[in-house]
Amino acid sequence: MGLIQTFGAFVGISGLLSGVMADPFNGTPPQSYGILFFPAFDVIDVYGPLEVLQSLGSLHHIEVSFIAETLEPVSSERLMVDKLNSTGFPSLTPTHTIHDSPELDVMIVVGGPGMTSNNLNATIDFIREKTPQVKQLITICTGSGLAARSGVLDGKMATTHKTSWPDIITYGPNTTWLPDKRWVEDESGSPPIWSSSGVSSGLDLMLHFVETYYSLENATFVSKMLEYVRHTDPNDDPFAYNGTLSARNCRRDRN
Amino acid sequence: MGLIQTFGAFVGISGLLSGVMADPFNGTPPQSYGILFFPAFDVIDVYGPLEVLQSLGSLHHIEVSFIAETLEPVSSERLMVDKLNSTGFPSLTPTHTIHDSPELDVMIVVGGPGMTSNNLNATIDFIREKTPQVKQLITICTGSGLAARSGVLDGKMATTHKTSWPDIITYGPNTTWLPDKRWVEDESGSPPIWSSSGVSSGLDLMLHFVETYYSLENATFVSKMLEYVRHTDPNDDPFAYNGTLSARNCRRDRN
Repeated sequence: MGLIQTFGAFVGISGLLSGVMADPFNGTPPQSYGILFFPAFDVIDVYGPLEVLQSLGSLHHIEVSFIAETLEPVSSERLMVDKLNSTGFPSLTPTHTIHDSPELDVMIVVGGPGMTSNNLNATIDFIREKTPQVKQLITICTGSGLAARSGVLDGKMATTHKTSWPDIITYGPNTTWLPDKRWVEDESGSPPIWSSSGVSSGLDLMLHFVETYYSLENATFVSKMLEYVRHTDPNDDPFAYNGTLSARNCRRDRN
Repeated sequence: MGLIQTFGAFVGISGLLSGVMADPFNGTPPQSYGILFFPAFDVIDVYGPLEVLQSLGSLHHIEVSFIAETLEPVSSERLMVDKLNSTGFPSLTPTHTIHDSPELDVMIVVGGPGMTSNNLNATIDFIREKTPQVKQLITICTGSGLAARSGVLDGKMATTHKTSWPDIITYGPNTTWLPDKRWVEDESGSPPIWSSSGVSSGLDLMLHFVETYYSLENATFVSKMLEYVRHTDPNDDPFAYNGTLSARNCRRDRN
């Protein structure tokens, strides 16, 4: 472990103990984001955080790269044979490959049914190599399972898509998986690693990120633009995994 | 007005008076959806409803077409000059043009900053011509402004993106715009026209649509997959327009 990592771990642990997080961006709000994706990605895992960044991009200069193994369009279509033969799975074209990715302040690893594929070794290697080079790692939904496959979640706390819970946590036997968090902020190392629960919870993580590293005013601006009522308490998880895969509540009026 | 339209209007009005909605699908859940979009569309306006339909597509056979003026990829990039020069505005490639659109049970007109463009005459003509041929029209966010430009909202009730309220309602001088609804269901004619407020409220409209025309169980399944806490009361609008563009609440913990 190099000096920077040692220092980062020290700041992270001391921050955790004191209840004060270290700022991985040293007071300068992040500008460059990279979204890492793969075949059969989940569309809201990508476009939820992206919508937040697009709105934020009218207040701050924001750069978003879309990173995959090649520059070919990547389909969101499920890989499994679907006997219902439903359609409506568009592609997203990367701007960069894992071989020429730009410098990033923040890497966002998304999820989706394709994250269990055996053909993602190059993507998984990239996560392992790139993570120490970014200032913050964010995983959305089952993206934490993909990050776990690379080893970067070893010794960390994380959460994931609650409906996929029993399957995903097997990818991280050395990770402390928290089943009742809307999102988790592990600040114990460098970079910090924040992981969201499923799909729309990524909006809550991202808006909390904006509040933390830009301002509450910016987060409120984006929430209003999206007409999205934020969940601001990561410990209030309406979909907490309790071993039976039942959601406590899917309807706001029954809270 | 032809016989079918007259009958539709009659059923709509009687349904409204009796409090029972007519079923435009005659008991057979809809299968074919078309998402109509244009340059500088809002990404969640498209991908929010799409995520719902993709999840529903694992329970029912669902077909989703992506319809634009040509088959060229359509960029989500803002048309206005942005001095911040932010990046991160991917394209979506249509599956159909407005000249060869398939038969649709449901047409979804999305919004986004591009809806004010003067170059959308062909898209607006298409909305006017296609609407009488579909069983249900849905607008998301400022998509209701585009629908209003075509005339199909004349004499109807509708709502739209609250942050864009004063601008959008000018497109529909003959529309009754409701400023304090999360979404609006106008059942007075054929097809029925449902309009959502901004961006994420489209998820609530779509999940209510699934509950209404598929089942509550299906809507709950999709909500759980998305880990999305539904707003189930269209009259509970946290972002109601009150003339000052202030949101009542962007944070769930302050409700």
